[in-house]
This record gives sequence, structure tokens and C-alpha cells, in this order.
Amino acid sequence: MFSFLNDYSEGAHPRILAALQETNLQQEPGYGLDSFSQAAADLLRDVIKQPKAAIHFVSTGTQANLITLSSFLKSYESIIAAEHGHISVHETGALEAAGHKVHALPSQAGKLDPESICDLMAFHKDEHSVRPRVLYISQATEVGTIYNKQELQALRAVCNAHQLYFFLDGARLGNAVVAEGNDADLVDIAGLCDAFYIGGTKNGALLGEAVVIVNPALQDSFRYHLKQRGALMAKGRVIAVQFRELFRDGLYFENARHANAMAQKLAHGIQAHGYAFAQEPQTNQLFPIFPGIVIEKLKKDYESPFQK
Amino acid sequence: MFSFLNDYSEGAHPRILAALQETNLQQEPGYGLDSFSQAAADLLRDVIKQPKAAIHFVSTGTQANLITLSSFLKSYESIIAAEHGHISVHETGALEAAGHKVHALPSQAGKLDPESICDLMAFHKDEHSVRPRVLYISQATEVGTIYNKQELQALRAVCNAHQLYFFLDGARLGNAVVAEGNDADLVDIAGLCDAFYIGGTKNGALLGEAVVIVNPALQDSFRYHLKQRGALMAKGRVIAVQFRELFRDGLYFENARHANAMAQKLAHGIQAHGYAFAQEPQTNQLFPIFPGIVIEKLKKDYESPFQK
Amino acid sequence: MFSFLNDYSEGAHPRILAALQETNLQQEPGYGLDSFSQAAADLLRDVIKQPKAAIHFVSTGTQANLITLSSFLKSYESIIAAEHGHISVHETGALEAAGHKVHALPSQAGKLDPESICDLMAFHKDEHSVRPRVLYISQATEVGTIYNKQELQALRAVCNAHQLYFFLDGARLGNAVVAEGNDADLVDIAGLCDAFYIGGTKNGALLGEAVVIVNPALQDSFRYHLKQRGALMAKGRVIAVQFRELFRDGLYFENARHANAMAQKLAHGIQAHGYAFAQEPQTNQLFPIFPGIVIEKLKKDYESPFQK
Amino acid sequence: MFSFLNDYSEGAHPRILAALQETNLQQEPGYGLDSFSQAAADLLRDVIKQPKAAIHFVSTGTQANLITLSSFLKSYESIIAAEHGHISVHETGALEAAGHKVHALPSQAGKLDPESICDLMAFHKDEHSVRPRVLYISQATEVGTIYNKQELQALRAVCNAHQLYFFLDGARLGNAVVAEGNDADLVDIAGLCDAFYIGGTKNGALLGEAVVIVNPALQDSFRYHLKQRGALMAKGRVIAVQFRELFRDGLYFENARHANAMAQKLAHGIQAHGYAFAQEPQTNQLFPIFPGIVIEKLKKDYESPFQK
Repeated sequence: MFSFLNDYSEGAHPRILAALQETNLQQEPGYGLDSFSQAAADLLRDVIKQPKAAIHFVSTGTQANLITLSSFLKSYESIIAAEHGHISVHETGALEAAGHKVHALPSQAGKLDPESICDLMAFHKDEHSVRPRVLYISQATEVGTIYNKQELQALRAVCNAHQLYFFLDGARLGNAVVAEGNDADLVDIAGLCDAFYIGGTKNGALLGEAVVIVNPALQDSFRYHLKQRGALMAKGRVIAVQFRELFRDGLYFENARHANAMAQKLAHGIQAHGYAFAQEPQTNQLFPIFPGIVIEKLKKDYESPFQK
Repeated sequence: MFSFLNDYSEGAHPRILAALQETNLQQEPGYGLDSFSQAAADLLRDVIKQPKAAIHFVSTGTQANLITLSSFLKSYESIIAAEHGHISVHETGALEAAGHKVHALPSQAGKLDPESICDLMAFHKDEHSVRPRVLYISQATEVGTIYNKQELQALRAVCNAHQLYFFLDGARLGNAVVAEGNDADLVDIAGLCDAFYIGGTKNGALLGEAVVIVNPALQDSFRYHLKQRGALMAKGRVIAVQFRELFRDGLYFENARHANAMAQKLAHGIQAHGYAFAQEPQTNQLFPIFPGIVIEKLKKDYESPFQK
Repeated sequence: MFSFLNDYSEGAHPRILAALQETNLQQEPGYGLDSFSQAAADLLRDVIKQPKAAIHFVSTGTQANLITLSSFLKSYESIIAAEHGHISVHETGALEAAGHKVHALPSQAGKLDPESICDLMAFHKDEHSVRPRVLYISQATEVGTIYNKQELQALRAVCNAHQLYFFLDGARLGNAVVAEGNDADLVDIAGLCDAFYIGGTKNGALLGEAVVIVNPALQDSFRYHLKQRGALMAKGRVIAVQFRELFRDGLYFENARHANAMAQKLAHGIQAHGYAFAQEPQTNQLFPIFPGIVIEKLKKDYESPFQK
Repeated sequence: MFSFLNDYSEGAHPRILAALQETNLQQEPGYGLDSFSQAAADLLRDVIKQPKAAIHFVSTGTQANLITLSSFLKSYESIIAAEHGHISVHETGALEAAGHKVHALPSQAGKLDPESICDLMAFHKDEHSVRPRVLYISQATEVGTIYNKQELQALRAVCNAHQLYFFLDGARLGNAVVAEGNDADLVDIAGLCDAFYIGGTKNGALLGEAVVIVNPALQDSFRYHLKQRGALMAKGRVIAVQFRELFRDGLYFENARHANAMAQKLAHGIQAHGYAFAQEPQTNQLFPIFPGIVIEKLKKDYESPFQK
């Protein structure tokens, strides 16, 4: 049985395990105050060219979204997301459980457009409604598409016009920034967003996501939020060592390029057989449209999302 | 300046004040354990023909929705409502602040249809999504329309099929049950819903809504919820005395009939001038479609929702 | 059967009902934007000599505590209270349900001393613990005692030293300010506290408490909090009319004086029979120490807190 | 500079890294549905002799406490803990942030006694107070002491008498069960508790704690809670592989014995120099009482908790 189901069905890139091995017996303070966490954060600040960004490492994408977004909001403030946005549909209401409404806006190819955001803002004017305060997008989106630089700039302009913070869910950020035709790199994204996270779990790490808070007004007391949500790991080094390894010489981008290239190969094969895609393949997520008979045949040899 | 803006711009029906006057010096226990609360609850149980219903009095509609709905739900459970449902848009995210997602479904004339609920349920199958657990509707709806008995029965059937509790927001329930052409009375509603509330504030009371929990499985420990949310009034009698007065000889229905009749009169006048309505007038909420020039003219003598 | 159980076993002072009667048919905007709410707030600002204080009317003491305190706090911030403080033990964990720890400190005669607060602060230094942010006291306390002006000033100094907001629960504030030997009036309290509330329910109103936010930094967006917690009454006028009546010519203080005088009379009688008190009677709460045989005898003619 | 500060200042036991290495390229489903998670859970069920226990792996002790305890409670229910209990003082109010009061009871040598729990229960009788619902203890306690079997049985009896669930925080459970003089093993604990967790992070793992829910009534829908709190790791295998390694041949106990033995050696040296301990050393936490001059001298060569 083969599986193309997801990018987290195996362990880590071999260099990740080697790095953990190498650093294993070095004695360090706990709770993310170790030298590896410092070094990994410095490295990331260099890569994104934001020397004052605050950087914290957490263990899952839901933690990254939940803790970061909720730390920005007052109790009556809300988040705008696409209807298929991960926080809207696939995090078991984590943000509502933290007290915040998530507005689910219609999207095109998984992407939000500025107009629908402005329409929403026009309807939220007084204390009988929540006050939208963060714009949440995913890059790559949940359907594998990418916002280009101009689209990101347009969303930033909407955020400026309506006092919204701009947050980018980067669970698949590696695959987005190395994608063919993409023109927004990590420096662009860090320059446009108030905060975002860089996903490790889906790009070669054992576990771990790096939360980047660029806006200084949002950096205060973040460790209180981490601890309160159970995200401050006693051995914070475990994730930091991995990010240091992923970013010290470009392994992060290499992994993403490999994943995209393999997906492209698969996509070409599927296209060669005459099948179309629900979304044009841009990264490593593919949504081919197969007839039922093909699906049944594929299920014999390949893991299927329809089996569970 | 005249105002037709809403049904809570004045105080109470004169008989309400008289009843408060009459009972004022009677000594009673606090926190809703008084004899008036008992009497009012008994009266309501008789009216709805549900001798085992639990009945509690609270001071606002948002309290009624918030406390009742949240008391039914586990942290990962959610509520289905129409996109214009009061809890979706006009309660400042009260239910999200209590931890629960509110799904906003498209509606026709303010009303939900069974099919869209079934579609939603089909998408919420495992622990990566919330689990929808309550169906919330308003009667009359936020646009003044009414679910007829058959429509209510169809929704009940959907609830049964999907293990959903059925909750009805009755802020304007009086206006609905006495509306011309309505075929679902309080007994029908109590028989179909797991819980609902009967609005007093918009139908002659100074303040107060009566929460009715019909389903015995949902009645336990409700006073803990009331107290924790700040809704257990030391002088619980204040609301109970009013409901006793409203229901002891039909004043509640009389008030509602009067409001509907006055609205009908207004509607006929508007129609006579050739204007249409966004929704066919059924209760005491009117949504006439006026040209801008008429709106400007009306604003000179009448309070407008567009002025604030 | 006589009852001295509490100060909310009857309705309202007759003038309260008269005021509601008089204003009943005046047409006004809803949700606390009416002219009565404006007038009552102006009156209170005059009485406390704080022309810039924000004033809001809510229906219960638990609402006043819950909404005001939670609106001041970030998710990881906590409240310091006496072990017998109302929010510690008699509000069903309302503040914890809003996400905040309540530290219960030992007290003398129901009162907190500065030293124990400083000790607590010394233990809460980093992100592994909550950050205490509000000092909560009750005046009169839950055992009927009163903080004098010097004690209040000492607590204010502690608050200044530790960046704590100072909040005073005034459910029984009337009884405190008119008590014999009291030297802290409403102007003093308003000058020392960041926020407090003035209780109406226990001093002649049908219902209602007036939240006073003196510190301008804490006033923003409070109506969002009121609405989200279900405390924004459609007929906000109902409470405002009562506070206008209570404060327009000193009825509030007259009611409190009467209650204290009656309690004094009772206390003297009890003392004359040779019984002592757990707390020296200062306001209208009495805690006589009776032998069991006396308690049993009293139960025959008087309501007892030990019966429920 | 040497550090005896804690048991998480280094990486993992070498066999842990080897196990991750060995299993690294095996393809498995995500989110804890992999074969390693199944195998590790089966192994633990065998060890504790509870074939029907539900077992879940999470990444931190705060997660284990927060998610498990909050999943057991209704909104108005609370938790009883010792005043120095980890959830009382060192988890940044995580449980209050989830809505629940934590009662902090006085303790002797870090341990709760049944009587103080009964006293607390006697004060929590109606809806004006929270309803205590879980008894939380730590084994070993926060001061390194151990409840013996008789003490655990006495607490279980209190729980039975008062409808309390019994939860044990096992961050240092390994050190407790192998401690000299201890008479309660994992089988005893699993037989007495409704739920507990077995700490990995402080006993040789890179990260990870195993939540064990013995009581079948508390097992339902736990994965919803895990996901909503951000604890469901995409590569759930990462923790499972470690627990499988720790428990397949007793490595877990061997690690704990080693830690205790090293601590005993240290303790004997300290005692030989004539110093006493605040708590008699039982596990691997030592609390020697040094004069200031000794502390200053030690700080030159050893990491100190007083430096940060």
C-alpha cells in the first residue's frame, strides 16, 4: 500500500535526527530559554530580515494559530477567515473555545478578496456585533493555491484601512515560497504581516512550528499565553534544534522544493492521462478530478482519504 | 418626533406596574425561590401543557440564549443558526465568548430549511471539526416571518435524525403565535422544542424573559448556570410578578394582537401608497422598500434606524 | 413568620414604583441610550465629584463584578480578594468561568491587609504563574465591617506599588457610607478606586447596580462587554429611572440610614440579653452568637438561613 | 558550571533517539492513529493492568492536566488541589482560563489530607458556590514527597463519599513508584484513580506525557478535546515511539531509579556536612536548608534557581 495522503506520514529528514543526536547531552535551561532557541530565533530573524521580530516555537499548527490569534484579541473581537480556512473548519472550534467568533467568508480558489472583507466591516459598526480585528489567511491555502505579492499587498491595504491585524498561517509556507511562479518570499511576507508562522511539521521536522510576531505592539507577555495553553515545553530545545538545522543552510527550502517537484511529477502524469484538477496544482497539494471507477481502482493500492 | 423603531421604547403595560405595586410589600425569599416565581412557572406550565417543564426567569434575551444554549453544550459542540439569526449577528459573539461556534446557514425569508442542515451535518464527522448539537431558530424570525407547524415539524425531524437539540428564540413569540395565518401555538412549540424562551420585554413587561426547558435531560443544575452568568436576581420576584400578570388572563396574547394589528394598519397604509415590502408583513416588524427621497422625508418626523 | 434574613425580601421603596409609573409612557431609545440613563449618570457623577467617570447600569451584583473585572484583564491576569470575598465564594466561580484566577487571601474582620497582598505579589514573578492585576474589596464587607479612609488609602498605595487596579464591590455601599464612625464617603471612594459599583437592589431599588469606572484607561468599549454578557437591557431606562430617583434628593442615603438604624436597634436588644457578636455591628448585617437552644427557639417565629 | 536544577536540562536517553531513528521512514497515519500509538497504548494498558483504559499522548504536563481535567468538568464545577499543587501555582492559571476554579487547600509535606477535603465539601452546597468535582494530587508531590498506598486509599474513599473524580499528576510518577519505601505501584494507582498521567519529559523522553483515563465514563470524545486545545500532533508517532521504548523492557523504571540513586548520593553528602532538609528526601527532588554564605559559594559553580 502506497500513501500520498499527506506530508506527515513519516518521521523527519535524517539531518533533523542527526542534529538532535549531536546536541543531546548539552546541558541547557528549560522552557525555551536555552541557547538553541536563541540561535534558531536569530537565524530566522536574519532570514526574514526583521531583527526585532519575536520568535517562539510551538508543537502544532493549531497551537500556533490558537495562541497567537487569541493573544491579539479582546473578548469581543473576532477573526476573518476564508470559508475553508483551517481555523474555520479543521481546528475543532479552537478559537471559538478561546472566546472568538471566526467569520467565514466566501473565497475563490481558497483565497479571500478585499471587497468581501470591506463588506463585512460595513456590517460591524456597534456594540451589538463583534468587532473584527484580525485577517487570517493561509499560504499556501488549504486547496494548494498561493496569494501573489500583489494580492498580499491588497489585503495589507484593507487591514490598514480597517485596523485589522494581518496573520498568515504558514503550515505549508515552505511549499508556497519555493513554488514556481511565486513572487512573495519570506522577507515580503514578514514585511506585510503583523504575525505569521513557519511550519516545520509538514516540511521535514519531527514536530514544530515557528511563530513570528513582527508587530512590536503584539509581542508583550507572549510567554504567559504559551504557558497558559500548555505550549511551553520543558525541553524547548527539541523544536529549536530542528529549526536551527532547517534554516542554517537552506534545508527548509530544499525540502519544500523536493515536495513540490514530486507533486509536479505526479500532476503531469495525471494530466497525461487526461484528468483535470479542481485547483491548478501550484504546490504539493493535488486535487485531481477522477471518475468513481478510477477512485475505486486507486483505493486498492493507495491510501485514500475516503476510507476513514 | 414619532418613533416606530421598536417595541421597547416605552415602559410597561399599566397592569404590569399595578401588579408590582400590589405585591410590593409581601415578604418573600430571594433568588427566584419566591412564591411568585413558583406561581408564574405553574401558570406557564399550564399554558404550554408541559407539567414537567423547568421554567426560569431572566432579564434579557441575550441572557436567555447564552445561558440556555451554553448549558446544553460540551466545549467542542456548536450551534446551527440562520445567517441573520440573532445569536449569529446581534449578540456580540456571546456564544463564541462562551466557547461555542455558531454556524451561520443561508436562509429564505429568515427561515432555515432542513436540507442545508443535513448538508452541514455531513461535513462534521470527526474530531477535526466541531460537533453541531443545537438547532437555533427565532419565532418570529429577525425579518418578521413565521415558521408554520409543518416547517417546525420538519426541523424537529432533522433534529431527531442528527441528535440535535431544538431551541427556539421567542423574543417575539407572542407576535408569532397570534399572527394571522399562524397554525403553531405555544402548546405545539413546547411539544416540538427541547427548550425555548417566551419574551416579555418586547410584549409589555418592564423586563424579563421566561426560559422553558422541556427536555428533562437538560434541566439539571440550571440554577448554577444562572448564578455563574450573573442572571440570578436577588429579587427574582420582579420578573415573576410580571409574567404572572401577563399570563393569568391572556394579557400576553392581547398585547401581541394589538401590536400586530397596529402594524397591519401601518402596512396597509404603506401598500396603499404603492410600496412593496422586503418581507411580506406577518407580525409587527415591517420592512417596506422606500425610495431614498421618501426616507429623507420620513426622517424629519420619525425616528430612523439609519441615524445612529 | 418574620424575616430578618436579608435586605431583598421585599419589593422597592414606594418612590421607586412611583418614578417608574410617572415615566412609563415617555418614548425613549433602547439599550441604555435613553435620557433617563444620561440623567442618572450625570447625577451620580455629580455626587461622586468625578465628571469624567463612565457609568453603566446592570441588573445584578454578580454582573457588576463579572463584567467590570473581566473587562480589565488579559487572559493570564488574576484578581486578589479576601477569602470570604463575594467573588471568591458566592458567585459560582463567575470570574473563573470568564478565565481568571481569584486569589483568596486571609482576612481580619473580613478585611484585607496590605502586607498579605505584597507577599502574594512577591510569589508571582514570571510566566509560570498568573499575573495579579486587580485588588477586589467589598464595602461594607461580607461580614458587615467597614474599611476606614486610612485603610483604603493604604490599599491604594499597595495598588500603586504593584500596578494593581483597585475595585470596590458596593453591593452594600449605602450602608457603609452612612454608618456611624465611617469616614470615607462616596467622593473619597471614587477618588481612591479605579472602579466600583453602587448597589441598588439591597437599598430600595427593584433591581439594579451602577457601575462606575473612574480610570479613563478602563472605560473603552465597555458596552461591548455589557452586550456580550447579556447585560445590555433593551429597556435600560428601567434601572436608570430608579437610580435617578434614589439620588436626586438623597433617598439612597436615607434608605441606608434607616436600615442601619433598625439593625442597631436589633443589636442593642441582642446585647441587652447578654449575647456577643462574631463581628462588631457596624452596618445592617448582624452576626450574633446564640447558643443552639436559642437558635431553635428563634426558628419557630423567624426565617432562618439554616433551614434551606 | 554544573547544573542540578532540574531533570529536563538535557535531551533524551540515547535509546529514545535510536528508536526514533529506527522507525523514521515507516509510513503511518497521522494524528495518533498510527501503529506506534496503538502499540504504546497496549503496552501501557498491560503494565497498569487496565485493559480498557483509554490512553492518549500529549506533549507537556500542563496539556495533560488542562485537557484531561477540563474534559471532566461542567462549567460550574471545580478542582481541589494542594496550595502548592502545580495546577494551583505553576500553570499560569490554565484551568481557570478553561473556566474552572481551583481550590487551594493547605497541605502537610505537600500532601492533602481527607479531612480538609470534607470541610471544603461542607461549604459547597448550593448554586451560589461552585461544585467541587475533581480531586487533584501530584505523585511525587511538588516537594518530592510520596503518598503511600494507605493515604491514596483514604483519598479514594473521600472521592467516593463526595462524588469526586480522583486525578493524579504523574509528571514525576516514575521517581515515585521506584522510590525506597514506596508501596503504591502503577497497578495500584491505576486501580485507585479515575485518571492520571505518566510523565515522559522528566524521565528520559525528548517530550511527551501519557494520559491514562481509567474510568470509562470519562473516555468519550477525548480526541475532540485534544484537537481543540492544539494537542493532537500530526506526527503523533513521535511521542508514541518514545513511550513504547520506555516501557517495552523497563527503561522507564531504570531511568527513575538512576535519578533517585543520584539524588540519594547527593543527599547523603549534604547530610554528612550537617545540613537538614525542608522535606525528607524521598525521590529526586532535594530541598536542603543552607545558610546564605553556603548558597553564595555554591552559586559560583552551580546553576541556581535564585538567579533568574
